[in-house]
Amino acid sequence: MHVLGIDPGIERTGFAVLEMKPRGAFSVLDFGCILTDKKLPTAARLQSLAQDLKEIVSKWKPVAAGIEQVFFSKNVKTAMKVSHARGVIMETLEDHGVSIFEFNPSHIKMAVCGHGRADKHEVKKMIQYTLGIHLKNDDTADAIACGICLVTTHRNEIA
Amino acid sequence: MHVLGIDPGIERTGFAVLEMKPRGAFSVLDFGCILTDKKLPTAARLQSLAQDLKEIVSKWKPVAAGIEQVFFSKNVKTAMKVSHARGVIMETLEDHGVSIFEFNPSHIKMAVCGHGRADKHEVKKMIQYTLGIHLKNDDTADAIACGICLVTTHRNEIA
Repeated sequence: MHVLGIDPGIERTGFAVLEMKPRGAFSVLDFGCILTDKKLPTAARLQSLAQDLKEIVSKWKPVAAGIEQVFFSKNVKTAMKVSHARGVIMETLEDHGVSIFEFNPSHIKMAVCGHGRADKHEVKKMIQYTLGIHLKNDDTADAIACGICLVTTHRNEIA
Repeated sequence: MHVLGIDPGIERTGFAVLEMKPRGAFSVLDFGCILTDKKLPTAARLQSLAQDLKEIVSKWKPVAAGIEQVFFSKNVKTAMKVSHARGVIMETLEDHGVSIFEFNPSHIKMAVCGHGRADKHEVKKMIQYTLGIHLKNDDTADAIACGICLVTTHRNEIA
């Protein structure tokens, strides 16, 4: 049974595909970043993001997806850009029958690092250590973290 | 040739269908509000919004759509909710080959009232007067205003 972890963005959307295994175990099957072309207008970038996500969903047929809740108090412009992408992602997943679970950042940090106040660096380090992989960027780390949060805290609701 | 005016929202999305006529004329063929069920989770509401919008697009086959740019400085939460809906609307239109034009509020007010500092009430009053119709809610008025802005300021780019 496969699930997704998603870190949404208009420019870069991190994704991770996890497989749920018996007795609380899981493995990460795939991860990466959906990129959109800066030169395109917003609507075309959103369409390109939706298409790439559909390909991932078609390939892995996930039953559920974990996605981070967005909390911004400083930069409204960034919050709105992320929300455009996030809306498209949620609608695309819903349209393909993927159950969506939203997590706040501290919930995700707790699931990965054992405490809710870990910084980005600590989350990435913990994921690299646990899974024995090297991650080039933070979007991918955050997506894997969302996936881990989903399989460790909502296993019974998915399976 | 038909165009849309859209006022996006997660709860209520105003829409208007305008027909472009020769010599700068236009008429309003249809207008209304796409509502989503408050009890549903966000993803399901976004899916329902996308489906209703697809029906409008299938029925009227618009070539272009005018949509208001969102500027919020006070309430980030509201800005993010609107942006989720706005992202889905833009992606849906793009996916159906509808050209999207984004307008800032003062641009729209200028097109409808002749000056950029008109308030909501003035915009609604002017639309009701010009079109000889009665509008029950502001979302519909804003959607018609977006449509009027599109046909009066971007006619050459559409036709």
